[in-house]
Amino acid sequence: MLWLVGAGINGYKGLSLHAVDVLKKCDIVFVERFTSALADSDIAGINAAIGKEVRPVQRWFVEDGREILDAAKEKQVALVTYGDPLIATTHTELRARAAKASIKTAVLHAASGIASIMGECGLHMYKFGRTVTMMSEPKSALSVYNIVFDNLLAGNHTLILTEYSHDEKTGRPFFLDPSTVLKMLLDTEKDVRYHIISEETFVIVASRLGADDQRIAAGKVKSLAGVGFGDGPHSVIIPGSMHFTEEEALEALTVCLDSPADNAAQARRVSAQMVERYAPKAREAIQQMRGILRKEGESKGMHEVLDNAEYYIDDAERFLGQGKHELAVLSIGYAEGLVDALRFQKGINPWNP
Amino acid sequence: MLWLVGAGINGYKGLSLHAVDVLKKCDIVFVERFTSALADSDIAGINAAIGKEVRPVQRWFVEDGREILDAAKEKQVALVTYGDPLIATTHTELRARAAKASIKTAVLHAASGIASIMGECGLHMYKFGRTVTMMSEPKSALSVYNIVFDNLLAGNHTLILTEYSHDEKTGRPFFLDPSTVLKMLLDTEKDVRYHIISEETFVIVASRLGADDQRIAAGKVKSLAGVGFGDGPHSVIIPGSMHFTEEEALEALTVCLDSPADNAAQARRVSAQMVERYAPKAREAIQQMRGILRKEGESKGMHEVLDNAEYYIDDAERFLGQGKHELAVLSIGYAEGLVDALRFQKGINPWNP
Repeated sequence: MLWLVGAGINGYKGLSLHAVDVLKKCDIVFVERFTSALADSDIAGINAAIGKEVRPVQRWFVEDGREILDAAKEKQVALVTYGDPLIATTHTELRARAAKASIKTAVLHAASGIASIMGECGLHMYKFGRTVTMMSEPKSALSVYNIVFDNLLAGNHTLILTEYSHDEKTGRPFFLDPSTVLKMLLDTEKDVRYHIISEETFVIVASRLGADDQRIAAGKVKSLAGVGFGDGPHSVIIPGSMHFTEEEALEALTVCLDSPADNAAQARRVSAQMVERYAPKAREAIQQMRGILRKEGESKGMHEVLDNAEYYIDDAERFLGQGKHELAVLSIGYAEGLVDALRFQKGINPWNP
Repeated sequence: MLWLVGAGINGYKGLSLHAVDVLKKCDIVFVERFTSALADSDIAGINAAIGKEVRPVQRWFVEDGREILDAAKEKQVALVTYGDPLIATTHTELRARAAKASIKTAVLHAASGIASIMGECGLHMYKFGRTVTMMSEPKSALSVYNIVFDNLLAGNHTLILTEYSHDEKTGRPFFLDPSTVLKMLLDTEKDVRYHIISEETFVIVASRLGADDQRIAAGKVKSLAGVGFGDGPHSVIIPGSMHFTEEEALEALTVCLDSPADNAAQARRVSAQMVERYAPKAREAIQQMRGILRKEGESKGMHEVLDNAEYYIDDAERFLGQGKHELAVLSIGYAEGLVDALRFQKGINPWNP
C-alpha cells in the first residue's frame, strides 16, 4: 500500500496526528526534498516523532517512482511531501500508476501553499481565477499577462506563482524576484496595451509563506519598487474587484503601503474599447457624408442608409451597456459598412476623408 | 493572542503536531461546529489530545466574535475550525478585527476541502478557473452556468460547491443533490444556449470528501443519472481541457463510467458562433446582389462595394482563426453593412430577400 502524506507548510510539525499514526505503522517512509522546504532539522523531527529513520529522496526519484511502487506492492510505504500531496502533478501521476498496478493508495491531505497564500492575503479564495506561474524566460510573460487580463475582465484575482528551481551544479535555490515579475508585466503592457498593468496597479507580494519571516507586502507597483523582498519563494497577486471585507483584511493583515484599489475597474474588454473608439468616428463620418450628399445631390436611398447607420451606432452603445459585447461590435461594424458603401460609391477614400 | 487553527478534513486527527502544541498552551479553545464535520467523537478526541476541555461554539458565535476577541485581549485563545481556517471569510474577518484591536494573531493552516477536492479528482489545481457555489434557488443556476462558460472558453475546470445548510428547526443538515445541480444546468442551457451542457457533458461528482465513505464518480451526465450519490456534502466538477495525465488519473482513481472527454472543445465563443453563422449568409447575399446588378444595371461603384464585402468576410474568418475575436465580429458586421447599404438603395428588404 502507498500512503501519500502531506507535511503542510510549517516544517515537520505540519504533519497531522493521523499522519504520525500512519507513518509509525509504515515499513518504509520516503520524504521528498525537492523544494528544500523540509530542512535537516525537519527530517530529524520526523524521525523522532515516528520512531524510525525516514529516507530523504529527490524529485527525480519520485518522478521515476519504480522503487517506491515496487516496495508498495509488498509493504506499507509512505511518501511524505511538502504542502498537500496532490497539488504537485508528479504525486497524482504516481498515485494513478499505483492504482493501475493494483496497489492500494490513500492520501493524507495537509495545508497547501497555494490555498494558504490566498487566505493569508485576506482575499476570498473563491474569487481567484486561474493560477499561473511566471518563469524567467521572457515569453512566459505574455501568457501570464493574458491570464491576468482574462481574470480581471471577470473581476477575479490572479495568483502568480514564480519560478523556483535549483542550480544543478551548486544546488543553491533560485527564486525569481517579484520586482522582475512586475517589470516583465509592465514590459508586456507596452506591447499588448490592454491597459491593465501600470505603476498605479495595486499588487500583493507574499514572501516565504509559512516561514517565521513570512511577509506580505501590498501597494501600487511604484510603491513596491523600493521594497526589498528578501529570499524566496515569492508569489505575486493581482487582485481584481475586492469586497470591502477583503480590503479591510488586506489593510489590517499585510504591510499595506497604499489604499487597496480595484484593478478590474480599468480592465476594459477589447469590444468595449472598440465601440468607444469607433462610435464617435462613425457619427462624424455620417455628418460629413450628409454634407457631401447635400452639396452633390444624392442617389436614391442614400439618406436612408445613413439613418440606418445612426440607429446601429445607438444599438452598439446600448448592447455594450447590456453586456452584449459581440452584438455591440457587430453593430458598430455594420454601421461602418453602411457608411463606407456610400463612400466607395462616391469615390472618397473612406479612411482618410 | 488569537490562534486560528485548522483541523483539516479528517476529523480531529487532521490537527497538526504544531496545532496540538499550541492548543495545549492556550487558556481557552473554541471549536467551531458550523459544518458538523467535527463530530462529538472529534471533540472528545481533541480534549484527550490536548488535555483540556474545549468549548464547542456555533457559527453565529464566531460571526459575532466579541466574546472571542475580548478573551484574546488578555489570554491565549484558539479557534479550531474545519478545513483551513482562512477559506471561510468569517475567519478572515475575525482575524482582521483582532489585528485592528491590536490583538496578535497567528494562523495554523491545514488541509482545505476545496484544494483537496481538486487533487482527489486527479485534476491539476492550477487549471481550475473561478470556483462557484450552486444554491437551490433557481436564479443561482445562471451565474453558475456563466462561470462554467467563461472557464470552458479558457479551457479551465470549474469546481461547483453546492449548498449546505442546517434546517433551523430540526438542526438536520440539508445538502443540494448533484442530480439537482445537473438538472439546473441543463435547464439553463435550454434558455441560454451556449451549447456547453448536455447529456453528453463529462462531469465529476465528489461526495463526502475526507470521510471513510468518500466517493468520486465521473462520467457523462446521462451516465450519472442513475447513480445514487448518497449523503452530502457534494461537489460537482465540470472539467475543461484535460492533460492526458489528468485523464489517466481520473480513470485510475475515480469511479469513471465513461472515457473522459474535453468539454472545452465544444465551448464556442459567441463571436465564433456569429462569424460561422453569418459568413455563409453574407456570401450568399453577395451572390444574389451581383445577380440583381447584372439584370438591373448597376450604379457607380456597387461592384467595388461587393468586392470589399467579400474581402472583409475573408478577414473575419482569418481573424477568428488567429483568436482575434472582436476584429472577426467587427469585420463580418462591416461586410454585412456594405451589402445592406446597396440593398437599402435598391429598395430590397435586406432581411428577407
